[in-house]
Amino acid sequence: MNFAGNHILSIQQFERDDVDRIFDVADRMAPYAQRRRITRVLEGAILGSMFFEPSTRTRVSFGSAFNLLGGEVRETTGFESTAIAKGESLFDTARVLSGYSDVIAMRHPMEGSVAEFAAASRVPVINGGDGSNEHPSQALLDLYTIRSEIAARGKSLDQLRIAMVGDLRYGRTVHSLCKLLGLYPGVQIVLVSPQALQMPAEIVEDLRNTGHSVLESEQLEASISNVDIVYSTRIQEERFNTQEEADLYRGRFRLNQNIYTRHCEPNTVIMHPLPRDSRENARELDDDLNDNPNLAIFRQADNGLLVRMALFALILDVVDDVDTHARDVRWYTGGRF
Amino acid sequence: MNFAGNHILSIQQFERDDVDRIFDVADRMAPYAQRRRITRVLEGAILGSMFFEPSTRTRVSFGSAFNLLGGEVRETTGFESTAIAKGESLFDTARVLSGYSDVIAMRHPMEGSVAEFAAASRVPVINGGDGSNEHPSQALLDLYTIRSEIAARGKSLDQLRIAMVGDLRYGRTVHSLCKLLGLYPGVQIVLVSPQALQMPAEIVEDLRNTGHSVLESEQLEASISNVDIVYSTRIQEERFNTQEEADLYRGRFRLNQNIYTRHCEPNTVIMHPLPRDSRENARELDDDLNDNPNLAIFRQADNGLLVRMALFALILDVVDDVDTHARDVRWYTGGRF
Amino acid sequence: MNFAGNHILSIQQFERDDVDRIFDVADRMAPYAQRRRITRVLEGAILGSMFFEPSTRTRVSFGSAFNLLGGEVRETTGFESTAIAKGESLFDTARVLSGYSDVIAMRHPMEGSVAEFAAASRVPVINGGDGSNEHPSQALLDLYTIRSEIAARGKSLDQLRIAMVGDLRYGRTVHSLCKLLGLYPGVQIVLVSPQALQMPAEIVEDLRNTGHSVLESEQLEASISNVDIVYSTRIQEERFNTQEEADLYRGRFRLNQNIYTRHCEPNTVIMHPLPRDSRENARELDDDLNDNPNLAIFRQADNGLLVRMALFALILDVVDDVDTHARDVRWYTGGRF
Repeated sequence: MNFAGNHILSIQQFERDDVDRIFDVADRMAPYAQRRRITRVLEGAILGSMFFEPSTRTRVSFGSAFNLLGGEVRETTGFESTAIAKGESLFDTARVLSGYSDVIAMRHPMEGSVAEFAAASRVPVINGGDGSNEHPSQALLDLYTIRSEIAARGKSLDQLRIAMVGDLRYGRTVHSLCKLLGLYPGVQIVLVSPQALQMPAEIVEDLRNTGHSVLESEQLEASISNVDIVYSTRIQEERFNTQEEADLYRGRFRLNQNIYTRHCEPNTVIMHPLPRDSRENARELDDDLNDNPNLAIFRQADNGLLVRMALFALILDVVDDVDTHARDVRWYTGGRF
Repeated sequence: MNFAGNHILSIQQFERDDVDRIFDVADRMAPYAQRRRITRVLEGAILGSMFFEPSTRTRVSFGSAFNLLGGEVRETTGFESTAIAKGESLFDTARVLSGYSDVIAMRHPMEGSVAEFAAASRVPVINGGDGSNEHPSQALLDLYTIRSEIAARGKSLDQLRIAMVGDLRYGRTVHSLCKLLGLYPGVQIVLVSPQALQMPAEIVEDLRNTGHSVLESEQLEASISNVDIVYSTRIQEERFNTQEEADLYRGRFRLNQNIYTRHCEPNTVIMHPLPRDSRENARELDDDLNDNPNLAIFRQADNGLLVRMALFALILDVVDDVDTHARDVRWYTGGRF
Repeated sequence: MNFAGNHILSIQQFERDDVDRIFDVADRMAPYAQRRRITRVLEGAILGSMFFEPSTRTRVSFGSAFNLLGGEVRETTGFESTAIAKGESLFDTARVLSGYSDVIAMRHPMEGSVAEFAAASRVPVINGGDGSNEHPSQALLDLYTIRSEIAARGKSLDQLRIAMVGDLRYGRTVHSLCKLLGLYPGVQIVLVSPQALQMPAEIVEDLRNTGHSVLESEQLEASISNVDIVYSTRIQEERFNTQEEADLYRGRFRLNQNIYTRHCEPNTVIMHPLPRDSRENARELDDDLNDNPNLAIFRQADNGLLVRMALFALILDVVDDVDTHARDVRWYTGGRF
């Protein structure tokens, strides 16, 4: 696809080449995200950050990514109650607010609303999550993390072996990740979930129809023995009708250091979209894994900066100028990473 | 008036020369607002944006206008409940907060509060709306839009013919616009509203006393046949005692493409302060007007940037330095306007 | 202490030399805070401003201080309800969010939470108030103000004579200030409060054990006759069980111009951590003192900028580069101070 001036609404937009392009650019963002260099390439540009649903980490990650490229951020948080209560259409909101920035990152509770907004916007829009529908930058940062972690272990995305664990029914991130993995050949996926929280059948079908191996299981230990990645997820309890129903599944699959040592291959990477549930009765990833160097969950969150910087640089077509407007960091950053 | 270092609290401050000066400066801001150039003239300056009452578009418009001049924005939204609940006077609040910025844009639900704040402030304050009292930058952007639109049609503000339609009693913008129009000779105004929602009598009197023609009507179609501008407004239902009372008037005057074609002169400009009410039972401006090139409502919103940039540049006395600190835009802006 | 890369969590961290160092750097920030010069030394740096409890003036003061050094600010306000409701630990929150900025200023309602967050953070954290525990930048700006005010009167912190008045039990600022004053020799402190709102005994003991003179009194007039500073405080009514209980003490000690003239030495400095309670039944500092040049309460608030700029410059180790990246202010600042 041509990135310059375009919206990023769904991972369905991407071919494998597009994903590779995004990741190549993300790699080049590392010196800036890690504060070894700063760049002012987007000095004077404005990001309109519109989070009509709260999401601290996604909002701050988008905003910091734009700052790291030298741009400014104008934020709107909370439901845009005033204008909507007065009967304003999403079309009008988009036409007006898109005049105040150069690019927009938007989250909205309603499925499809970001695409509707984008259709009326005069500047490119990145979908930062529209209900249970899409959140493309999260899927990209997950895949980017997998690529980085296994590259450090001498492997590539082709023939990747991955176990996805937990609430695979309601977890938006694993759905999107499965679709992205489908772009790579020979991926082997083990899906570990309670029967009631299985991955939607059409996603499994699509993977199998394109030649990938998919196994479904209700056993954690047996499923994590021969994989490169364990991708754990939280029970999305806010999606259940009752707390009791959610409690049936909370804490069902728990990975800790002991299980990891006994069952996983050395250097198996542990991922999680965060937040992880650290309460006594949940702990899908135990705190005793925090010292395990294969726990990649915080590097995964850091990678969000790289991927979002890459999306901004591609959409605004400044990839080749980033380094031109760079210089060394002036302040103390000792021990930062 | 002398702009440098002064507050902008009310349109009553302005002579015609002042308005002309603001508009001339606003014209010069277009290359920056339209992202053909960027300027860093206010690099290092801080706008204190204090919206003690929510107003997404006005807040973002002020903030983006300041960013477009190269400055930073520190925002406060929501009611400043803490300090006020602790018994702090507006004087103290102003003395303290005005020490943290170079200029302030402020909205507050209480009439007169912005002027009271400004009296204690150590930096210039722009009134971004104080209850039903004043909102000078909105009145200026309305008049600026009229000037731009009719200039493109070979006319000027002198001898302007305008119909104002809808809730003329509670709509703050039409009151202020009438006062500003009073600065120009020979303006002909048709006021179209239900009897109960007529323009306040003193405003009508003032216009007539200064030699302007004012007609009042309850008929939409007959009133829009010989005008340059139709300025439509929303029923301010939040000002009525009951929903039933507001419903009496909602949807009373509706302009759509069919009525426009049958009754208006070619190229009659359609304006609205926004938000327009697009719900079934309102639609003072129908969505089928969206493709009509004379629908100026989004250009009107865009002009808010120009007028606010002009006010900042005048107050901070950097008008002649804006172009000195300018350069070309580095990022992709194709198809932006 | 070594400032570069370190957290600022408590005034207990500081020796007298450290305080002197902070104040020397704060002095050098004056041209920038007073808008005679701007500096871009922190251009490209990001402050993560996390106010999980509202505090407009402290939040804006930190943000503006960072902007004045040339940096950007990414803000989070309100309780970070989403992630915490989903069971995320403060450790995880800190690890993730600290990846998005170069330094963090944080306020949190829970005592000890900022230190816990800092322990997991990968960048330096400044405590902006954790419940009733610590608020080191406030204590520093209070002491810095005392130093500046009495220096202008030819005195120094050694042998300082100060009266603290009001709610000395619940007022966090007076506790911290007492501890800081303990670093200087021969300080004479008069504590004026109702019996029930006395300074905690251990603080008084510590001061006496290190050779300072501490008197306790319930009489305002007699206590302010021989001091350099009167430091007045508000009754922290939100800490009382009932409004009735708070009302017992509200308005008990009131300083006004008449009392000042009759009882204080000429040029006695009046301070207050703000907000002062200006309601009829409170008025610990009457509005009729506003024209008294010895009323230092707004200079005190302004000094917050200087002290916070100094902390940022020290932590990020750019003190000696501030002037290198400076230039004159381009905009009109007439009559600003």
